[in-house]
Amino acid sequence: MITREHCAALDAADPLAHCRARFDLPPDTIYLDGNSLGAMPANVPARIRRALEQEWAHGLIRSWNDADWYPAPQRTGNRIATLIGAGRDEVIVADSTSVNLFKVLVAATRMRPGRPVILAERTNFPTDVYVADSVAEMTGRELRCVDPADVLGAIDETVAIVSLTHVNYKSGWCYDMAQVTRRAREAGALIVWDLCHSAGAMPVRLNDCGVDFAVGCGYKYLNGGPGAPAFVFVASRHLAQVRQPLTGWHGHARPFAFTHDYEPHPGIDRMLTGTAPQLGVIALESALEAFDGVDLDVLRAKSVALGNLFIDLADQQLAGLGCRLASPRDPRERGSQVSLAHEEGYAIMQALIARNVIGDFRAPDILRFGFAPLYVRYVDIWDTIAALEDIVRTGAWNTEAFKTRKSVT
Amino acid sequence: MITREHCAALDAADPLAHCRARFDLPPDTIYLDGNSLGAMPANVPARIRRALEQEWAHGLIRSWNDADWYPAPQRTGNRIATLIGAGRDEVIVADSTSVNLFKVLVAATRMRPGRPVILAERTNFPTDVYVADSVAEMTGRELRCVDPADVLGAIDETVAIVSLTHVNYKSGWCYDMAQVTRRAREAGALIVWDLCHSAGAMPVRLNDCGVDFAVGCGYKYLNGGPGAPAFVFVASRHLAQVRQPLTGWHGHARPFAFTHDYEPHPGIDRMLTGTAPQLGVIALESALEAFDGVDLDVLRAKSVALGNLFIDLADQQLAGLGCRLASPRDPRERGSQVSLAHEEGYAIMQALIARNVIGDFRAPDILRFGFAPLYVRYVDIWDTIAALEDIVRTGAWNTEAFKTRKSVT
Repeated sequence: MITREHCAALDAADPLAHCRARFDLPPDTIYLDGNSLGAMPANVPARIRRALEQEWAHGLIRSWNDADWYPAPQRTGNRIATLIGAGRDEVIVADSTSVNLFKVLVAATRMRPGRPVILAERTNFPTDVYVADSVAEMTGRELRCVDPADVLGAIDETVAIVSLTHVNYKSGWCYDMAQVTRRAREAGALIVWDLCHSAGAMPVRLNDCGVDFAVGCGYKYLNGGPGAPAFVFVASRHLAQVRQPLTGWHGHARPFAFTHDYEPHPGIDRMLTGTAPQLGVIALESALEAFDGVDLDVLRAKSVALGNLFIDLADQQLAGLGCRLASPRDPRERGSQVSLAHEEGYAIMQALIARNVIGDFRAPDILRFGFAPLYVRYVDIWDTIAALEDIVRTGAWNTEAFKTRKSVT
Repeated sequence: MITREHCAALDAADPLAHCRARFDLPPDTIYLDGNSLGAMPANVPARIRRALEQEWAHGLIRSWNDADWYPAPQRTGNRIATLIGAGRDEVIVADSTSVNLFKVLVAATRMRPGRPVILAERTNFPTDVYVADSVAEMTGRELRCVDPADVLGAIDETVAIVSLTHVNYKSGWCYDMAQVTRRAREAGALIVWDLCHSAGAMPVRLNDCGVDFAVGCGYKYLNGGPGAPAFVFVASRHLAQVRQPLTGWHGHARPFAFTHDYEPHPGIDRMLTGTAPQLGVIALESALEAFDGVDLDVLRAKSVALGNLFIDLADQQLAGLGCRLASPRDPRERGSQVSLAHEEGYAIMQALIARNVIGDFRAPDILRFGFAPLYVRYVDIWDTIAALEDIVRTGAWNTEAFKTRKSVT
C-alpha cells in the first residue's frame, strides 16, 4: 500500500527537488500539463522586461547588434543541442514545429529524388501527418501511413523519408530511436524525428543514433512560453546539401547584402526563413537556464519514477472505476507522461481542473498527465490520483458545467 | 529658408502630436528607423508582464481559454484589417512575412493552374524574390522578374500571379495599387501585395482596389516589437477555395478533434499553421492601440509633410555634399520614407547613429530615413539634416570605427 508519506519521502530524497524553485508555480495547483505548456521559469519576466524596456524601447534597432539579438536563434539552438544529443551548430531556433517539419521534409525529398514514399504513421500528432501529406502532394510522392507496430517492416528501398514522433502525444509510447534510425539508414532512407514530447523530458541521442533531421517544440518540456519558437536539427554531414523551400532572407549566406539571388548560408542558419520572433526566442533562451547543471539521466530516472508511481497508484486506487491505462507499463517504452482512458474523460478532466489539478484531455477519451521532472513532485502524483478517485467514485464530473466543451481542450 | 523655429511651429500645430506620448522613446534620440523596427508603445510592457506573471505562470494551460489567447491572432488580424482596408475576418496574424508569402503564392498558383508565370520585380525586397523563386520551382512555374516600370506591360494572360511590394524598401517608391491591381484582374491574374512598408504608415485600400492577397510585417510601422508576427490577408471571395501548403493543425477546421485528415478551417484561420507565437501576438495586439482614434488620412498627410520637409531641407542644406535623393520627389509616388544615396553611406550612417540620430543603411549606398507619423516630429527632421550636414561637411564619418561593418546593418 503506497501512502502519501511514502511519496513525501521520495520528494525529500529527490536530487532534482531544488529545481522546482526555478519556476513560478501557483501554490495551490498541481500541474501535470507541462507536456502541453511548460510552467514559467521564474527568471523569464525580468529578462523579458529588460528586452522590452531597455533593448527594444531604448536600444531600438541597435539592439540587433548591441544586445546580441541577431545570434539568439543560434545561441538558443546550441543550448537545446545539449539536451538532444546534437553537436554545436546543428540546431537552430525558428518558426513553429509544423513550419520546420515542412522545411525538413521537402529538403529530405530533394536528397532522395528516386524514391516515391514518405513513410509516416497513423497515430502521429495530426499536424505531422497533415504537413507530410502536403509535402507529398507538392513533391509528387506518396504518403504512406502505417500502424506503429508496422513501421520497421515498412521501411524498404522505396522509402525516401521516415517521419515519426519520438514519443506519442496521446499514449506516451516511445519509439526505440536507435533501432528505427538504424533500419532507415540500412534501407537508404532519411529519418526525421519530431521531438516535441521528448526534448527536455528525457535524454535524446540524435548523433549517437545517426539521425538525419529532427524538429521540436519550445513550449512543452523546454518551458519557453505559449507558442515559443520551435527548433530544427540537421546532422552536420547533410548541412552543405540541404535545400529547404522557405527561402527567406535570414537563411541567406549574407542577408544584409540584399542580393537578388538566394545563396543559402553554409551552416544551420540556412534553416531560417524570416526575422526571428525575438521576444519568444529571448523567453526560450532564458527559460532553458532551468536545465543548468541538470544531469539528463537523473532527469530521466525521476521521470520514470513519477510515471511508475502514477501507474502503481492508479492500480491501487482506481481499480473497477472505468479507467484503463492507455500508456505502456514498461518505462522503456514510455516518455514522460501517463494516459488513462475513460469514456467520460472530458468531463472528468474538467472536474479535476476545477480542483486545480491540471492535466489535459485528448479526443476521444484520453486523460493525459505529463511529468516535467524539474517541477513535478511525488506528492503531486498522490494528490492527483486521490482527486481522480474521488471525482470518479462520487460522479462529481457529471454536471453540465464539466461536460460543456471549450474551444481549447 | 526653412528654420528650426518653423519646424517647431509645425509640431505645435500637428494634430497627431499627442500620439508621441503613446511611445516609450529615449529622450535624447531621434528615431527615423521605424520602418525597420517600430518604437515601443508604452503600454506593451504592462500587458506582457500580465501575460507572463498572471496568464502563463498562474493561468498556465487554462489561459488559452480563460485569457482569450486562442482567438488573439484573429482579434489582432481584425485590428490590422482596419488599417489596410480589409474586411472583418479577412486578416489573421501568423508566422513571418516570408512564410505567409510562401503560403499565399502556392495557394494562388493552385487557383491558376494553366498559367506558367509568376511575375515579380527586380528591385523588390530580396526575401520576396527568394520565396517566389522557391514557389516557382516547387510548382513548376517560371519566375519572371522585370523592372518596376515594366510591370504593367508584363501582365498578360500567361501570368498566374503578380507579386509586388506596395512601397519599395530601399527607395520608398510606391506603386499605384489600384492601377496595377486593375491590370492584373483584367488579365485574369491574381495579385499579391506585400505591405511591409505601407501598413500603419499610410491608408491602404485592399478591398477598394480588389486585391486578392496581401502579407505584411508586424514590427515596422505597426510597432509590434522585434520579430513580431506577420499578417496575411485573403479576400473573402477566395477564402473557400484557398489551399495553402503549410497545413498545420491550427489551420484545421477542428484542431482539437485531432483527426487524421486535414480539413481546412472555413475562414481565414486556414492560413494558420502551428501554434501562434503568443507573446509576440500579445505584444502586437497591445501595440496596435497606438492607432486608436487616428484618422489614416491625417496620418498620411503628416507622413507626406515630413517627407517633403526632409527633401526640402536636404535641398537647402546638403547641396554639393555628394548626397543624391534616391526617393521620388512627388509624394504621390512615395511611401513614408526618404532615402539619400552617398558613396560613403555606411560610415555616414554610423556617424549619425553615434550622435543618436537613427536611420539605417541599405547596400550599396542608401541612407534610409523612415517617418513613423505617430511619433516623429518636424524638429526631428531639422535636427537630422543638421547632423547629416555637419558629418558630411566635416568628414566626421571618416574613421575606422564608422567604416567597420556590423552583422546587422
